[in-house]
Amino acid sequence: MLTKQAEKLAQDRAAVLFQKAGIVLIPEEAEQIEVADFGLGQLERQGLELVTYVNTERYCAKELALFPQQTCPEHKHPPVGGEAGKMETFRCRWGKVFLYVEGEPAAAIQARLPDGSEAAYTVFHEIVLLPGEQYTIAPDTLHWFQGGPDGAVVSEFSSTSRDELDVFTDPAIVRMPVIGQE
Amino acid sequence: MLTKQAEKLAQDRAAVLFQKAGIVLIPEEAEQIEVADFGLGQLERQGLELVTYVNTERYCAKELALFPQQTCPEHKHPPVGGEAGKMETFRCRWGKVFLYVEGEPAAAIQARLPDGSEAAYTVFHEIVLLPGEQYTIAPDTLHWFQGGPDGAVVSEFSSTSRDELDVFTDPAIVRMPVIGQE
Repeated sequence: MLTKQAEKLAQDRAAVLFQKAGIVLIPEEAEQIEVADFGLGQLERQGLELVTYVNTERYCAKELALFPQQTCPEHKHPPVGGEAGKMETFRCRWGKVFLYVEGEPAAAIQARLPDGSEAAYTVFHEIVLLPGEQYTIAPDTLHWFQGGPDGAVVSEFSSTSRDELDVFTDPAIVRMPVIGQE
Repeated sequence: MLTKQAEKLAQDRAAVLFQKAGIVLIPEEAEQIEVADFGLGQLERQGLELVTYVNTERYCAKELALFPQQTCPEHKHPPVGGEAGKMETFRCRWGKVFLYVEGEPAAAIQARLPDGSEAAYTVFHEIVLLPGEQYTIAPDTLHWFQGGPDGAVVSEFSSTSRDELDVFTDPAIVRMPVIGQE
């Protein structure tokens, strides 16, 4: 469980990253930056900070922040009802992102797997994104990503987001945040 | 018809605006910034510069640049086949945007109507967007927008974009660009 204090610290760090990327948030957005620790209790190594700008029944746009070497754990977006799973485009705005998807694995990946969770990472086709570079992830495709040495800011453009339906490789993961009381 | 030279100048000016907004484009994107003069031959007053990051059958994301007082003419996105028209969210990243949609008109609008084209502007419900502020335009709704005194940079998140199907109030408008030879 993420404590209120840990959440606030992460929000402040993410706000600094957004600022470095030249991204302006209104105060309400900055105060409500979502901090996802995926129930793993090791936010620095496995976690994600995000702002959802808009999420309609047709499209979604978010801004993501990753601390240095912070990893968004491996997951996929399965079909929902008769509809294909979420399709998403990651565009690096600042820093560097190591992105891994299904496909030909890299001989040696540049990211560092989170200690103790190695078994929860199974796809190693490597895409490195620098500012201005982007990649579109097909629906229902396993992927995970990690911030580079200075962290990263990434814009996510996608079809409708239904985070609660994401399927994670690590069975220990709980996507929806559980934030503690002070 | 936009000359190649005028197009290049507009691309360079738009690139400066994107830079001011902290938005990084890769060289291929900067060289291919779309310059829309809508066939009106008065780009400075009625036009738009844009980069389309991604446009799939499910969602679209673009970055728009407006010169000071440059106006994107009034139009709407009608239904296509059985599908609702394009829905779009404008998020101001830099500068100021005056946005007008159907609804209660402002007593006095802050934008200046383009000289000689006044009749082509019919909706005056005013929304002013500063950096970090955003607004979602419902499908099939007339709207137009103008850059403030320093211009503007706006991120557009939307359902699939089909610019060629846009319906403009001004019958003189041709949406798809006609670029001249040097």
